[in-house]
Amino acid sequence: MINLSTIQSIAVIGASNERKKLGYSILKNILDYGFSGKVYPINLKEEAIANLRSYKSVMEISERIDLAVIAIPAPFVKEVLQECVKKTIPLVIIISAGFKETGDEGKKLEIELLQTITHSQTRIIGPNCLGMILAQSHVNASFAANFPSYDPISFISQSGALGTAFLDWIDENDLGIDSFISIGNKSDIDENILLEQLDNQKVIACYLEDIKDGKKLMEIGYIKNQKRPVLVLKPGKSEAAAKAISSHTGSLAGGHVAISTALKQSGYIEVNTIGELFNKIKAFAWQPIPKSNKIAIVTNAGGPAVITTDLIIEKGMRLADIDEKTHALLQEKLPRTANMHNPIDVIGDALSDRYVAAMEAVLQEDEVSALLVLLTPQIMTEIELTAKLIGTMTKYNKPIIASFIGGTLVEKGMKLLAKEKIPAYHFPETAVDVLSSMVWYGDYVKKHETSLVASSQSMYYAASHGYISEKYIEAQRHNLKAFSPNISEQIAKRYNIPVPESSICATSDEALTHISQTVHYPCALKISSPTLLHKSDIGGVITDIQDDNGVRVAFDKLEGIIEHHSIFDAHIEVQPYITDGLYTIIGAQRDANFGVVLLFGQGGIYTELMHDTTTRIAPISKNMTLEMIDETKIASILHGIRGQDPLPLDGIVQTLQAVQDLMLDYPFISSIDINPLIVGKSGSFAVDIKILL
Amino acid sequence: MINLSTIQSIAVIGASNERKKLGYSILKNILDYGFSGKVYPINLKEEAIANLRSYKSVMEISERIDLAVIAIPAPFVKEVLQECVKKTIPLVIIISAGFKETGDEGKKLEIELLQTITHSQTRIIGPNCLGMILAQSHVNASFAANFPSYDPISFISQSGALGTAFLDWIDENDLGIDSFISIGNKSDIDENILLEQLDNQKVIACYLEDIKDGKKLMEIGYIKNQKRPVLVLKPGKSEAAAKAISSHTGSLAGGHVAISTALKQSGYIEVNTIGELFNKIKAFAWQPIPKSNKIAIVTNAGGPAVITTDLIIEKGMRLADIDEKTHALLQEKLPRTANMHNPIDVIGDALSDRYVAAMEAVLQEDEVSALLVLLTPQIMTEIELTAKLIGTMTKYNKPIIASFIGGTLVEKGMKLLAKEKIPAYHFPETAVDVLSSMVWYGDYVKKHETSLVASSQSMYYAASHGYISEKYIEAQRHNLKAFSPNISEQIAKRYNIPVPESSICATSDEALTHISQTVHYPCALKISSPTLLHKSDIGGVITDIQDDNGVRVAFDKLEGIIEHHSIFDAHIEVQPYITDGLYTIIGAQRDANFGVVLLFGQGGIYTELMHDTTTRIAPISKNMTLEMIDETKIASILHGIRGQDPLPLDGIVQTLQAVQDLMLDYPFISSIDINPLIVGKSGSFAVDIKILL
Repeated sequence: MINLSTIQSIAVIGASNERKKLGYSILKNILDYGFSGKVYPINLKEEAIANLRSYKSVMEISERIDLAVIAIPAPFVKEVLQECVKKTIPLVIIISAGFKETGDEGKKLEIELLQTITHSQTRIIGPNCLGMILAQSHVNASFAANFPSYDPISFISQSGALGTAFLDWIDENDLGIDSFISIGNKSDIDENILLEQLDNQKVIACYLEDIKDGKKLMEIGYIKNQKRPVLVLKPGKSEAAAKAISSHTGSLAGGHVAISTALKQSGYIEVNTIGELFNKIKAFAWQPIPKSNKIAIVTNAGGPAVITTDLIIEKGMRLADIDEKTHALLQEKLPRTANMHNPIDVIGDALSDRYVAAMEAVLQEDEVSALLVLLTPQIMTEIELTAKLIGTMTKYNKPIIASFIGGTLVEKGMKLLAKEKIPAYHFPETAVDVLSSMVWYGDYVKKHETSLVASSQSMYYAASHGYISEKYIEAQRHNLKAFSPNISEQIAKRYNIPVPESSICATSDEALTHISQTVHYPCALKISSPTLLHKSDIGGVITDIQDDNGVRVAFDKLEGIIEHHSIFDAHIEVQPYITDGLYTIIGAQRDANFGVVLLFGQGGIYTELMHDTTTRIAPISKNMTLEMIDETKIASILHGIRGQDPLPLDGIVQTLQAVQDLMLDYPFISSIDINPLIVGKSGSFAVDIKILL
Repeated sequence: MINLSTIQSIAVIGASNERKKLGYSILKNILDYGFSGKVYPINLKEEAIANLRSYKSVMEISERIDLAVIAIPAPFVKEVLQECVKKTIPLVIIISAGFKETGDEGKKLEIELLQTITHSQTRIIGPNCLGMILAQSHVNASFAANFPSYDPISFISQSGALGTAFLDWIDENDLGIDSFISIGNKSDIDENILLEQLDNQKVIACYLEDIKDGKKLMEIGYIKNQKRPVLVLKPGKSEAAAKAISSHTGSLAGGHVAISTALKQSGYIEVNTIGELFNKIKAFAWQPIPKSNKIAIVTNAGGPAVITTDLIIEKGMRLADIDEKTHALLQEKLPRTANMHNPIDVIGDALSDRYVAAMEAVLQEDEVSALLVLLTPQIMTEIELTAKLIGTMTKYNKPIIASFIGGTLVEKGMKLLAKEKIPAYHFPETAVDVLSSMVWYGDYVKKHETSLVASSQSMYYAASHGYISEKYIEAQRHNLKAFSPNISEQIAKRYNIPVPESSICATSDEALTHISQTVHYPCALKISSPTLLHKSDIGGVITDIQDDNGVRVAFDKLEGIIEHHSIFDAHIEVQPYITDGLYTIIGAQRDANFGVVLLFGQGGIYTELMHDTTTRIAPISKNMTLEMIDETKIASILHGIRGQDPLPLDGIVQTLQAVQDLMLDYPFISSIDINPLIVGKSGSFAVDIKILL
């Protein structure tokens, strides 16, 4: 726990009388924001700063200090930090830049800071940060000259620049804050510590350039996020996407996918742009969460309502149906030419009374979970009065979002809406996007499922552990990056993954014997080698072989390919050729930060092309496995479309669970790729299994 | 041609001294906007209005009248319009509502208006509209109380409400206009007439609830759109999507798809939201068009630059590479800690001089086609000075877009940017979206290909016309909605579509004879019936039959299905079973407004699910056909990915061209659906062909 609520004394190390220095701005901000506790300027040369007695060091001060703010050049920080530790100051904000962000030299300095506080009672925010503002206790320990009022909103920002933009934005939008914390290089205090501690917030927004401990972040989400929405902006998608990949699963479940999956799964609302972040803060701060995705629109213009309807449908929401009673209410109050079906069009000449009648009618309707009010500035439109009256509708305790479309004329109305704590946007698309996040969050809170805690070992572990460990040690000895296909299949079988019968054959005659005994026609021959990951790419798989002659020809061809590519560790494997069924992919990828990412979707060689896949962070329940299946487009094939029979899902569920078990049982497995798992009427078959180490 | 440029006298019919009447507002607007011509109030009762002599009728006025504005109740409009016709007033704006938009009664009144002007020299704008504003001649013939300055921007709006919002928005955004025309019910003058006439515009924006003549709209686009960008917002996507569909092609090429395809193909920039429309107007009005998709970013904050980079990549643009020379320029002017690779980060403490140095360096770089300037309000940031200096960068004649992220502090900077005609947005995502439209348009202008003019008949017409006409008459006689599969195949063959050999067989013995002679194994049997469109849905296709016994079993099964479903017009057809190849779909759908929509994409029974298709409006060249192929995801399969051989494209091109020819030769064909066209190494086969009437 760090102390954010009872700060009663602050030392400003590097406080200055020179206007250009950060230490001047910080001290001034603390004094100007109305902080009622004690303030101690620290400066080696000055006697007094801003009419306060100045000290040479915190050691000169006999009273308790709750917070120190350091704004001196990087090379001198360590020394004053040592004094802060000695003085047992619980919290130190290091504003100074010149650490990790500048390269190796700075990194060394930063590590020294951490060493300084090890085993001490002192915690650090920063270095290289803008500081911290706590509105309730009137602490502005930053060099941002903003003095926000109070609202239960917090912003944790890893970018100081975005912090200044945020503070400027809330100023214009009549919002206050609870806490603004610029975490900078977050060498000690990071997002997780703050997210654990910031309670009683209507909304928390985070800008995170990296995520320090993904598993912890998820754990906090599972515990806390059904109580409060947390918005997360995490940039760097295109960069992550550019990284090299080694398997289907790697390319579909790596990079930013793990982050997005983890955030969503543990109830964080991921946003992609600064506008989204800021606009959504306003709505979550001011309005309740909708109970469903059914929206009512009240408008004085038909065109914008049609556009807005398109967007609502596109975002997976629906227009609420209006029942008889509500319809009667509307007919009583609105002129005959009005549109009394949702969207309710009160028509261009509407005064505020028609808006009120329409809003009351739809808000009392059970089916309606949220209201979107559209207004265009027409000649009769009572913009400001309507804005005020929208504010009175909050008594229905359903979220209300407004879009006053225009410029100068609607500006005052927008300001009044802000006073009434109704989030308003110039364009309806912003309102719809905001609403869709609120609906998503409402849904998450409802069906919120805490992730499983993985049992220490799966049911297959005891029986297979000897075999797998042995093979791993062998693989290590030969410096292999993967198990051979044959061993992968053996492992898969031990985890109850449905693998078709197959055998390694030294000669075509041996293959023919296997075929006549167990495999039967049609069959497939393939090259099996731990070093060859994409055998299709070199023609290493020959399928649909119908007779003995075909086997001989195929065997010769594969031997030729092995020789041509000099694949020294290759064997030839014979398998039944299974065609009847849907090609799916099941995979898992170990992410350094979040753990195991499970993948399911459309399989085959065009998996990456079709990109019909979905992901979860393990461990997940069987129920979540079914949820994954339903998120893909191929779900409708599995459930049977266009006269096709539905396909059994148990093979998919079983394989996903088994892959999860394998990954959790053996941390040395970096990735599993089953592509395809052919799902047919009579069962599923894992036809090609790769286990990377 | 209508007269918009030389209006020298205006009559206001329904002018009034009563403030609440529209006629009062309209007259006042005309007078207040500084119109220098003559103004004639027309009112049955008054002697004088607004210090002007009032007339009972336009007939009382001896001078020429260039424009009449009518604002009296609907039932009286016809009579005064008759007088306008007699007086040969060339242009009449009918503001009055109560026409088509109110139902059958009003529709009758509107038709009477049209009859009144038939064979006259009078043209109508409206009825049910907001009016017209022409900034150059100071005509505000509307009831919108805005007096915009001049800019070469026009807005054609079918929604009066959106018109008021637009005028209010330009007021706040320091934009002027050339023409604002509210076309209302557009009973006479519509978007096409205006788009043909509005020349010398930097940008034209349209809000269209319906498109009156799609072919004409495209024709105008082909002729004019490489000279000026036209933004089109057309709502109603979700409504269009909900309509019933009768074929794969219908579901993938019908509804809003035809509109979007047509707009894109003829160079209109389709936008989906009001915000997009408004924000893009500003950029097109003020900035030149970028020469490529290579963008430079100059920023004082790293985080927002990373987010913006993600968005640029997502929208198909690229960060420009900075060459050695530019790099040296940057190193000379920027501090060592700045990031001298694109995005150029001048760092948080940058004053305006660093911005200038960075902007000049990247703008002189050939590779850079557009500049995006990001600014966050940090403690040293010279917001206003930087804004002014960005304005001086227009000398490089490359588009510059800015995003000043924040609220109150950046507001003044944004205003100054507007003065410099630099489009600026609060959030970078808006800037990126705007830029992507400019890049798209620049690309369109470069590769702009005027659509072909269809020759009156295709090369196949002469030889096939007798047969097809005969079959059509037969089909009509039996009231059939489609040609039977057998006839469809015959027609396809005559148009050189590659159809596999197939025969109708009355008995399984007859089928066996065909198989032994021409079809060979493996083969397929299917039900052929003009009334059965989705034969797979009832199990009407049996594939991969390997031997005589299989044929007999399949034949019996299909006979059973025919009997069970009582399909009286069914036959059984035998065909070779072609499996080796990629399933594609080729189709065409006749759209009432735009003509023939051609479709190509991933085929098979999951076509709608995968939605990997693209469309064009016919006629198109072979070159455009290849462009279509390349727009799909399966293009990479066709071109050969992951070690696969590329597949020949000639069968696709030939079939698309043939389908186009068929649709254009025979207007009675409403839709053609070839699914699948199996594209294999040794050729393509149209395995299932539907021709709907």
